[in-house]
Amino acid sequence: MPTLKELQETLSEIINNRYFELFMMGIIIFSAMLIGIDTFELKPIYQDIIFTLDHVITIVFLIEISMRITTYSKISDFFRDGWNIFDFIIVIMSLIPIDSNHSAIGRLLRIFRVLRIITIIPELKMIINSLFRASKSIGYVLILMFVIFYIFAVVGTVLFADAPSHLWDDIGVALLTLFRVMTFEGWTDLMYESMEIHPTSWIFYVSFIFLTTFTFLNMIIGIILDSLNEEHKEQDEKEHTKILKELLEQNRILIDKVERLERS
Amino acid sequence: MPTLKELQETLSEIINNRYFELFMMGIIIFSAMLIGIDTFELKPIYQDIIFTLDHVITIVFLIEISMRITTYSKISDFFRDGWNIFDFIIVIMSLIPIDSNHSAIGRLLRIFRVLRIITIIPELKMIINSLFRASKSIGYVLILMFVIFYIFAVVGTVLFADAPSHLWDDIGVALLTLFRVMTFEGWTDLMYESMEIHPTSWIFYVSFIFLTTFTFLNMIIGIILDSLNEEHKEQDEKEHTKILKELLEQNRILIDKVERLERS
Amino acid sequence: MPTLKELQETLSEIINNRYFELFMMGIIIFSAMLIGIDTFELKPIYQDIIFTLDHVITIVFLIEISMRITTYSKISDFFRDGWNIFDFIIVIMSLIPIDSNHSAIGRLLRIFRVLRIITIIPELKMIINSLFRASKSIGYVLILMFVIFYIFAVVGTVLFADAPSHLWDDIGVALLTLFRVMTFEGWTDLMYESMEIHPTSWIFYVSFIFLTTFTFLNMIIGIILDSLNEEHKEQDEKEHTKILKELLEQNRILIDKVERLERS
Amino acid sequence: MPTLKELQETLSEIINNRYFELFMMGIIIFSAMLIGIDTFELKPIYQDIIFTLDHVITIVFLIEISMRITTYSKISDFFRDGWNIFDFIIVIMSLIPIDSNHSAIGRLLRIFRVLRIITIIPELKMIINSLFRASKSIGYVLILMFVIFYIFAVVGTVLFADAPSHLWDDIGVALLTLFRVMTFEGWTDLMYESMEIHPTSWIFYVSFIFLTTFTFLNMIIGIILDSLNEEHKEQDEKEHTKILKELLEQNRILIDKVERLERS
Repeated sequence: MPTLKELQETLSEIINNRYFELFMMGIIIFSAMLIGIDTFELKPIYQDIIFTLDHVITIVFLIEISMRITTYSKISDFFRDGWNIFDFIIVIMSLIPIDSNHSAIGRLLRIFRVLRIITIIPELKMIINSLFRASKSIGYVLILMFVIFYIFAVVGTVLFADAPSHLWDDIGVALLTLFRVMTFEGWTDLMYESMEIHPTSWIFYVSFIFLTTFTFLNMIIGIILDSLNEEHKEQDEKEHTKILKELLEQNRILIDKVERLERS
Repeated sequence: MPTLKELQETLSEIINNRYFELFMMGIIIFSAMLIGIDTFELKPIYQDIIFTLDHVITIVFLIEISMRITTYSKISDFFRDGWNIFDFIIVIMSLIPIDSNHSAIGRLLRIFRVLRIITIIPELKMIINSLFRASKSIGYVLILMFVIFYIFAVVGTVLFADAPSHLWDDIGVALLTLFRVMTFEGWTDLMYESMEIHPTSWIFYVSFIFLTTFTFLNMIIGIILDSLNEEHKEQDEKEHTKILKELLEQNRILIDKVERLERS
Repeated sequence: MPTLKELQETLSEIINNRYFELFMMGIIIFSAMLIGIDTFELKPIYQDIIFTLDHVITIVFLIEISMRITTYSKISDFFRDGWNIFDFIIVIMSLIPIDSNHSAIGRLLRIFRVLRIITIIPELKMIINSLFRASKSIGYVLILMFVIFYIFAVVGTVLFADAPSHLWDDIGVALLTLFRVMTFEGWTDLMYESMEIHPTSWIFYVSFIFLTTFTFLNMIIGIILDSLNEEHKEQDEKEHTKILKELLEQNRILIDKVERLERS
Repeated sequence: MPTLKELQETLSEIINNRYFELFMMGIIIFSAMLIGIDTFELKPIYQDIIFTLDHVITIVFLIEISMRITTYSKISDFFRDGWNIFDFIIVIMSLIPIDSNHSAIGRLLRIFRVLRIITIIPELKMIINSLFRASKSIGYVLILMFVIFYIFAVVGTVLFADAPSHLWDDIGVALLTLFRVMTFEGWTDLMYESMEIHPTSWIFYVSFIFLTTFTFLNMIIGIILDSLNEEHKEQDEKEHTKILKELLEQNRILIDKVERLERS
C-alpha cells in the first residue's frame, strides 16, 4: 500500500499533466455548453440526458478538487490561495441538489462553473489579478464619482419630485436614473420632462454629464499612467542602469590605478 | 486659565487626532445618509427625528470649523487655503434656517455637506487638485469646442428655423440640441427631420459629429501627454541622472589626477 | 509725408500692440454675440441696430486686414501663410452685401467671422496645427474605415433592399445608415427590422460594430503613440544626451593626456 | 523567343512600375464605383454597360494575378505570402459567373474586390498587420469578455424567461440582447421591463455594464501599453545605448593604457 506522500506525488503529477489540464478544460467547456443548450426548449428525453451528464460533471469536479486538496500536506495550505477558495466554493455550490424539473436556483448555481475556466488558463488569472491591482488605484475616483452621484440624486429628488415618469421619487430610483443619464440612454427625454417643471433644469443634466465624463476620463488616464509607471520601473532596472553601473565600477578601478601610479 | 497659544496647541492636537478625523468622517457620512433617507416618504415622527439630528450635525460642524479657525494665529491665514474657504462656505450655508416643513432650498444647501468628504480624505483632495491642473491645459480645447458649437448653432438656427420640433428656434436651444447630438442621443431623429427641410442636411450632422469627436479625442490625448510629461520630468531627475552626474564628478577628479601626474 | 517703409513700421507696431490685439478680440466676440442675438425673434428697431453695427464691424475687419497686408513688402508674402489666406477669405466673404431682410446666405457667411478667434489666440492656432499633423498619420486608417463602410454599404443594399424603412435603398443612404449604426443610435431597431428579412443578419451588424470599433480604437492608439514618439524625440536631445556627450568629450581629453604621459 | 527567366524579369519590372501600380489602383477604385452605382435604380442600358465593364475588370484582375504568379520561380512560393493568397481568393471569387439579371451572390462576391486596395497600398497592409499583432495580446481579454457574456446570458434566460419582449428566450437571443446592452442602446427599456418581473433586476444590468466597461477599458489600456513597450524596445537600442557602449569601449582602452604606464 502506498504511503500518503507517494500518493500526493502521484496526484501532483497527474494534476500538472498537460493532458489532464486539457481534459479539465474540456469538461468545463462541455459543462458550459450543456447549460447553454438547456436554455432552449427541449424534449424531455434530452433534458434527462443533460440532467445525467450534469451529475457526471459534478462528480468529475468533486474528484479533481479532492485530488488537489490531497496534494497539500496541510488542508489549511490549500485555502491560503484565493484562487483555490474560489474553485472550492464553485464546486461546493454545484453540489446543491437540483431536481429534474429545473429549479432556477440550481441552474443559476451551475453556471458559475464556467468561471473555473479562469483558474485553468493562467493568462486569464493574470488579467484578473492586474484588474484587481488597477482597481485599488481607481478606488478613490469611484468614491468621488459616488459623491457626485449622491449629490445630484438628492438635488434631483428635491427638484423633480413631481415628474410624471416617477424616476426621481426617492434617492434609490434617482441614483439609477442618473446611471442611465451617464450612459446617455434617453437622457434628453428626461431633460425635456424636467424642463416642463423647471425651465432651467438643463443645467442639472449638462453639468452632471460634464462632471461624470470628466471624472471618468480622469480615471482612465489614471489607470494608464499607473500601468506605465509600473512598467517603467521594471524596465529602468535593466539595460541602461546595468551599463551605467559597469561604467562607474570601471572608473573606480581607473582612479585607483592612477593613484597608485601617482604614489610610485 | 490657559493662554491662547496653549489652547491652539490643544485644539491642533485634537483636530489632527486620527480618531477625531474618523469621527468627523462618520458625521459627514451620517449626515449624507440622513439626507438620503429624507428623500423617501416618511412618517412625521421620523421627519422630526431627522430634523433634530440635522440640527445636532450643524452644531458639530460649526464647532469643528471654529476649532480649526482658532488654531490659526491670524484668521486671514485660515482663508488663504482654498480648501478652508470651501469648508467654511459649506458650513455657513447649512446655517440658513430650515423650517420643519421642508423647504427645497434648505434641503439643497444641506446636501453640499457631503462635499466635505473631499477635504477629509487627502487622496480625494489630490485627485481634485490634479483635475484642476489638467483643466488648465484643456481650457483652450474647450474654447475651440465652444467655437465649433457656436458656429453650428447659428447655422442650425438659420437652416432649420421651421423644424416642427422647435429644437433650432434660437441659439440657446440650438446649443442644447447640439450637445444632445454630441452625446448621440436620438441624433438621427433630428437628422431625418432636418432632411425633410434640406435633403443635404446630413452633411451638417455628420461634419458636426466628426469635428467634435476629433476635438474631444485631441483633448483626451492632450491630457494623457501632459500627465506623462510631468511624470517624466520627475522621474528623470532620479536614478539615471544621479549616476551620470556621479560619473562626471569622478571623471573630473581623474583628469585632475592625471594632470598632476603629467606635471610631476 | 512718411515713406512706405515708415508707414509699414508704424502699422506693424500697431498690429502687434497688446491693446490692439485685445480690441480685435473684443470685436470678434462682439460680432459673434450680435450674430447670436440675431437668432432670437427681435423687434425691427433692434434688427436695424444689429444691421448697422454689423456694417461697422465689417469695416473694422477690412481696415485691419488692409493694415496687415500693407506691412508686408510684397503682397505675395502675405498669402504665403495659410492663416493669412484663412483670414482674408473670411473678411472677403463677409463683404457680400446682406440686405436688411435677412437673407440666409448673408447670415451664414457672417458666422465664419467667429473663426477669426483662432488666428487671434496663438494657442488655438497651435492646437489646430497639431490636429493637422495628427490627421496625416490617421489618414490611412480613415481610408481603411471607408473601405469597411463601402463594403458593408453594398452588402446592406443587396441584402436589405426591401426593408420597409428605406434605409438601405442605395449606397448613399446605406453609408449614412452605417454611420448611424456606428454611433449606436437605434441600431437594434434596424437589426430587428433586418432580421425579419434575413434571420441571420445580426452577423452583419455585430461584425460591422466590431470592425469599426476595433479600427477606431486602433486610430486613437496610433495618435497617442505618434504624439508620444514626437515628444520623446524632443526630450531625448535634452538632459541625458547632453551629459553623455560631455562625458565622451572628457574621456577623449583624458585618453589624450594619458597618451602624452606614456610617450614622455 | 524569350526564355522564362527573361519573361519573369520583364513582368517583374512591369508590376513594380509606378504607373502600373497607379493603373491597378485606378481599376480597383473604378470597380468599386461601378458596384456603388449599381446599387441605384438604373435603366437597363446602363446596367448592360456596367455588366460589360465588370467583365473587362475581371479579365484585367486575372491578367495581373497571372503576371504576378509567373514572376515566382515556384508557384508554391507565391502562396507562401498570406497577402498573395488573399488576392488570389478575391480574384477567383469574382470569376464565378454572374448573369445579367443580378443575382445577389454575384454582386456580394464582386464587392470584396474593394479589399484589394489594401494589398495595393503598403501603409494599409502595415496597419492590418499591426492590428493582427495587437489582436494576439487581446485574445485572452476577449475570452474573459465571452465568459462574462455567457454567464449573464444564462442568468438572463433563467430570470427573465417570461419577458414579453422575447429577448431572453434562449442563450443565443440573450447574448445578442447583452451585446445591445453593452452598446447602451435602449438598455433602460429592457431594465424597466425586467424590473416588472424581478424588482431588483437593476443589479443584473448595472453589474453587467460595470464588468464589461471595466474589461473593455482594461483591453484598451493593454493595447496601448503593449504598443508603447514595443516602441520603447526599438528606441532603447538607438541613441543612448550607442553612446554608453562607446563610453565603455573608451574606458577599457584607457584602463589598458594606464596599466601599461604602470608596468613601465
